[in-house]
Amino acid sequence: MSKSLKDIGEFGLIKKLFSSVTRKDVIAGMGDDAAVVKVGGKLMLLSTDSLVEGVHFRFDWFSNEEIGRKAIEVNVSDINAMGGTASYVLVSIIAPSRFPVKRIEGIYSGMRSVCKKYDVALVGGNVAAGSEFSITVSIVGEVPQKDLKLRSSAKPGDFIFVSDTLGYGAAGLGLYHKKVSGYAPVKKRYRNPVADFSKVSGFLGAIHAMQDVTDGLVADVGHICDASKVGAVLFADNLPISDSVRVVAQTLGDDAARYGMFGGDDLVYVYTVAEKDIGKVQGYLIGEITSKRGVRVYHQGKEKSVKGGFDHFLSP
Amino acid sequence: MSKSLKDIGEFGLIKKLFSSVTRKDVIAGMGDDAAVVKVGGKLMLLSTDSLVEGVHFRFDWFSNEEIGRKAIEVNVSDINAMGGTASYVLVSIIAPSRFPVKRIEGIYSGMRSVCKKYDVALVGGNVAAGSEFSITVSIVGEVPQKDLKLRSSAKPGDFIFVSDTLGYGAAGLGLYHKKVSGYAPVKKRYRNPVADFSKVSGFLGAIHAMQDVTDGLVADVGHICDASKVGAVLFADNLPISDSVRVVAQTLGDDAARYGMFGGDDLVYVYTVAEKDIGKVQGYLIGEITSKRGVRVYHQGKEKSVKGGFDHFLSP
Repeated sequence: MSKSLKDIGEFGLIKKLFSSVTRKDVIAGMGDDAAVVKVGGKLMLLSTDSLVEGVHFRFDWFSNEEIGRKAIEVNVSDINAMGGTASYVLVSIIAPSRFPVKRIEGIYSGMRSVCKKYDVALVGGNVAAGSEFSITVSIVGEVPQKDLKLRSSAKPGDFIFVSDTLGYGAAGLGLYHKKVSGYAPVKKRYRNPVADFSKVSGFLGAIHAMQDVTDGLVADVGHICDASKVGAVLFADNLPISDSVRVVAQTLGDDAARYGMFGGDDLVYVYTVAEKDIGKVQGYLIGEITSKRGVRVYHQGKEKSVKGGFDHFLSP
Repeated sequence: MSKSLKDIGEFGLIKKLFSSVTRKDVIAGMGDDAAVVKVGGKLMLLSTDSLVEGVHFRFDWFSNEEIGRKAIEVNVSDINAMGGTASYVLVSIIAPSRFPVKRIEGIYSGMRSVCKKYDVALVGGNVAAGSEFSITVSIVGEVPQKDLKLRSSAKPGDFIFVSDTLGYGAAGLGLYHKKVSGYAPVKKRYRNPVADFSKVSGFLGAIHAMQDVTDGLVADVGHICDASKVGAVLFADNLPISDSVRVVAQTLGDDAARYGMFGGDDLVYVYTVAEKDIGKVQGYLIGEITSKRGVRVYHQGKEKSVKGGFDHFLSP
């Protein structure tokens, strides 16, 4: 039988396909949050990300403005995770012909407000007919050479930090899925992820490798380890998880540490820092880079070798 | 009742939404084939276009490689239509989890072959789960200032040219829709549109306004007229339509001139040229820019005021 996407998953697929066509002016292609290209002496960052109705949002959970804001925030986060700032976006929408204009206007209103906030120009777009609603944003950013952060720059002995608390994404999603009322602040934060570059922009010089947490911490640290040919130990009992997320986990009968390890959509940055530089950075210390490959997690006194995060084709 | 997309159409929608967020370094935003931004002294072009299964292609009509090639060609054409050349592409795919990996590999193989042909780097991408298959390509190109072509530069008295024959798109689509066997060369050309910049790149200096024909000649000339605040007269009886397309029109009981006027997907360039410069250009003369607004067509001895082309939400 021939293989389908659910047999190999999106990471498998991307690895398989993107043995790519390149040029001399491409500094980094696949495998980072954004590609890096040299244009007129400047380093430009290019990235794209899609939100699909029913997969990344639901109209009965999110307001139209929230969907628009999320579409831009997740893309800005990819640029920030490279050490850069966003400049321009292109928006491609696929929508059924019966789709209400008011809804699209609300989504654009959300996109425009985030573009204004970050001084990003919404320079173009396309609208095509289809049976399923989706938004694909492509983003162009800029990064000074000295600030460029690649996933491949982690070194054994580096400490691993995250820029903010984890688990809101998983907790909010769990509440909606299980139709639990209340917990409005957690739900609101799940619906409104924010790319907060100010959390790391003040100490980029001290950071070796960085990326944003979107597939889940374990998976995303795994991406850094793969690219840097190193391993990592994560201290699951020390993850920064807010009390409000812990209360949700308790209500839903879940382990809050698992939200932090495997939940997606938190839009925090994970970065590695040499021991000598940890006085220069802010954030939460959650682990260490090792020369031994693989990602290991210490959780409730036990060491576990773990894999995975959210995969669009492998996850249920 | 509230309006849906089919009430206002994609052009109405785009006009409505893209009263956009901009910045000083954006030379031209919405309303051209690509946005123009200034980066480190260079003019960069940014554009995006989606192909949706069942709307822009069908797996039972197109080979996987043809779908991949078309996805890149239509985007390269947008960059060429601005007078520029393509540099980088990002590819976002939405696919069901049961989608066969072999098919995606074939599509990528097609995309890669076109990228190689034009020296375009495939620098990044994203794969997301969804119920409907679509490919969104975002493209970045470059244009020397002197070659930049905007839709807004047509002048009354300019002659209107197209770079190649018209109607293959409409003829091929008609053959497939009506399940007519034979006519392999017409079908093949419909499935394999090519962005042939060499047809215009030798005389860019003589061209005022340009764009590629993708929505249909009348609609696309209408876009130039709107942007330039002029009108146009088109000579429908003089459209360059090949004998093989005329034979298909006859077989299907259609008017070949209508294929040329309203058919999409031909990927030819339409451009306007001052009378004094027509000796410098190549192509087919099809009409004239007028100071009187609106697009008028002379067809079979009669003048008609026409509107429209392919609109994803208004067309049947």
